[in-house]
Amino acid sequence: MIVELVSTGTELLLGQIINTNAPFLAARLNELGFSVLYQTSVGDNRERMKNVLRTALERADIVITSGGLGPTQGDITKEVTAALLNKSMYFHEDSAERIKRYFAERRICMSDNNLRQAMMPEGAKIVENTCGTAPGVIVEDQTAGKIIINLPGPPHELSAMFETSIAPYLKEKYGVQGAIVSKVLRTYGLGESALEERIKKYILSQSNPTLALLARNGEIHVRITARAASETDALQLIVNLEGQIRPLINEYIFGIDDETMEKSVGSLLLAKDLTIALAESCTGGLVTSRITDVPGSSRYLTGAVVCYSNEIKVTHVGVPENIIATEGAVSPKTAESMAQGIKEKYFTDIGIGITGIAGPDGATAGKPVGLVYIAIDGPAGRVGYQHYFNGNRTDVKHRTALAALNHLRQYLLTI
Amino acid sequence: MIVELVSTGTELLLGQIINTNAPFLAARLNELGFSVLYQTSVGDNRERMKNVLRTALERADIVITSGGLGPTQGDITKEVTAALLNKSMYFHEDSAERIKRYFAERRICMSDNNLRQAMMPEGAKIVENTCGTAPGVIVEDQTAGKIIINLPGPPHELSAMFETSIAPYLKEKYGVQGAIVSKVLRTYGLGESALEERIKKYILSQSNPTLALLARNGEIHVRITARAASETDALQLIVNLEGQIRPLINEYIFGIDDETMEKSVGSLLLAKDLTIALAESCTGGLVTSRITDVPGSSRYLTGAVVCYSNEIKVTHVGVPENIIATEGAVSPKTAESMAQGIKEKYFTDIGIGITGIAGPDGATAGKPVGLVYIAIDGPAGRVGYQHYFNGNRTDVKHRTALAALNHLRQYLLTI
Repeated sequence: MIVELVSTGTELLLGQIINTNAPFLAARLNELGFSVLYQTSVGDNRERMKNVLRTALERADIVITSGGLGPTQGDITKEVTAALLNKSMYFHEDSAERIKRYFAERRICMSDNNLRQAMMPEGAKIVENTCGTAPGVIVEDQTAGKIIINLPGPPHELSAMFETSIAPYLKEKYGVQGAIVSKVLRTYGLGESALEERIKKYILSQSNPTLALLARNGEIHVRITARAASETDALQLIVNLEGQIRPLINEYIFGIDDETMEKSVGSLLLAKDLTIALAESCTGGLVTSRITDVPGSSRYLTGAVVCYSNEIKVTHVGVPENIIATEGAVSPKTAESMAQGIKEKYFTDIGIGITGIAGPDGATAGKPVGLVYIAIDGPAGRVGYQHYFNGNRTDVKHRTALAALNHLRQYLLTI
Repeated sequence: MIVELVSTGTELLLGQIINTNAPFLAARLNELGFSVLYQTSVGDNRERMKNVLRTALERADIVITSGGLGPTQGDITKEVTAALLNKSMYFHEDSAERIKRYFAERRICMSDNNLRQAMMPEGAKIVENTCGTAPGVIVEDQTAGKIIINLPGPPHELSAMFETSIAPYLKEKYGVQGAIVSKVLRTYGLGESALEERIKKYILSQSNPTLALLARNGEIHVRITARAASETDALQLIVNLEGQIRPLINEYIFGIDDETMEKSVGSLLLAKDLTIALAESCTGGLVTSRITDVPGSSRYLTGAVVCYSNEIKVTHVGVPENIIATEGAVSPKTAESMAQGIKEKYFTDIGIGITGIAGPDGATAGKPVGLVYIAIDGPAGRVGYQHYFNGNRTDVKHRTALAALNHLRQYLLTI
């Protein structure tokens, strides 16, 4: 089955946003055994969109659009789809009710044009949107035996709708040939090329399962994808290959599939029944925010202090004034006293101290932008780390947060 | 002049890489006054690539391809371009020499297939690659008066080649195409459709400048795009339209172009010479982290406490124990004492308190997941807000952060 992805939206043609929906859909559809042979982007223009969809229907069996389902005048994807397949639009009561409920539950007054989103091509399957107001649409062209699927543009709405409704629909309608299963080994601490060197012979020799390296904000993901008659067989193929490559990169693997660094850290803290508090300077609360992204993190996180000023470091974290005076606010000793101080003040098992220069200002002789000190104090004693991160201010913050979480993970593994 | 961008490479169809070349070229071409109306991605397959290029030539004057200029058998873009325009390929000595030099200078031994990169369509303009081995190609179809430009796939090679050779070529060949200038008014607090209702008549009536609404993580961006003979004229058109729509939505506009909410808050704090501290519970430090994303934020942010446990709320923020006992940790009174407490303990002009239920657990009778209280205490007195946010845990955190920053912005405007 040949698929064409059609991304709609003038902002794409102006280069104002990067299209992440197309690669997401392409990857998932390939895993399901469909061939995505074309991807097209077109603006919110009826004539051009109609021509693009016509061309797509000529060369593909399934056309999946993204974007243009919103309430505004510029949202025309459903209408153009209906026009192309000679179907009229009708007002879908259930969708209207759901949209009204959506606003009512959020205590937001709804303006009338939101109900445009309840206008549907006749005979279309309506797909519920669990993350937003715009329903998706599946229109089957019985005569040509082809299908157009309209999905919303916001990536989280699109991905949720694809997983909950579209993938099951496609599987049922076309019956996936055998099973395609993927497993992701999330690694941190080794560069992409260094990682590739270690497992190169498997990347080159493997055709099933396949091995792919994907760099994802500071992490490198090793994706193992196996195709087999049954899911069990596919999983067995994955287990075999994983058993071969794990010994080569095991120390860098922190999580599996969607297990984030903060999630794996949280699991370790729970397993070892330890509590934690943080004193963050240059990261400004980012590390604590990531830790609290994990449901149930209140069971091990007591709290944190963002000690941006030296006064707060001294008064509310307990860093001795003379250490800041003699060593400087950005120093190994300051990071260590931050870790020790927050641990004692917040009565936790573990304390973390982070201080550095996020930039662009603040660099001094011998202390460049990107210099960061991370310290951990806890049952396994006190440890400290020095890093030089590059990139802009937010890059440095994010790299520091990831490094701090990984240091904590490795610290917990020694307990 | 109508342009179509054709990105080649099977990795795009597999969703293994995100296409950043298309948005880069689209943005630059629009700035030069060209209209990019279509973007297509196709794999390394002769027949399909030829058909895609044929379709592109039918609907565009200029077709710019990216990728497929490398040394491997899979790199076929130049050959397919030549075949489509009925041109033969020949061996271009100068390019061959340049490629040999490239490897020699880098002390890398060159494999023969690298010389495939010196095969060129007859009559083509050869464009030097200053960052890699693959030259670019400009093929003019005299009869049809159309052009195909082949650019390399690696983004840094493509962008360098576009700036040094392609942009000048296009400017010279087509003269100044005039300019397209965009200005974005970033708004918060009014839904996309409600916002559209207010400026609908301008959206519908305007063809130049055009008005577009874009939803961006909780913000709505109003994009004004003007086309004119010169940048100055385009800017004037924007100023005129902005003057007409501003009165209708002014209270919701918080920033221009890339001015984030935290940046505009920071500017207000600096302008009014006020300092701030935060007590965050359900947001776990996210608001403080966003505030510290702004360079120089240490001039107004003293610090913050992430008070996840009630003990921290009492001991380190100064919330009276009985308030938590009688009103609950998630209550207007607790938020207000958090704001007041952190302001007093951290000796700042303004204190902010945020408490709520991020979920998925923690909901109680009358206090659903997504219930959030935000309080501000400062020179203009103490104010509190109640919100019901939807979405998962991180959605609630992000919506709360945005709301808190906007409440602070509006509070500062009253001072």
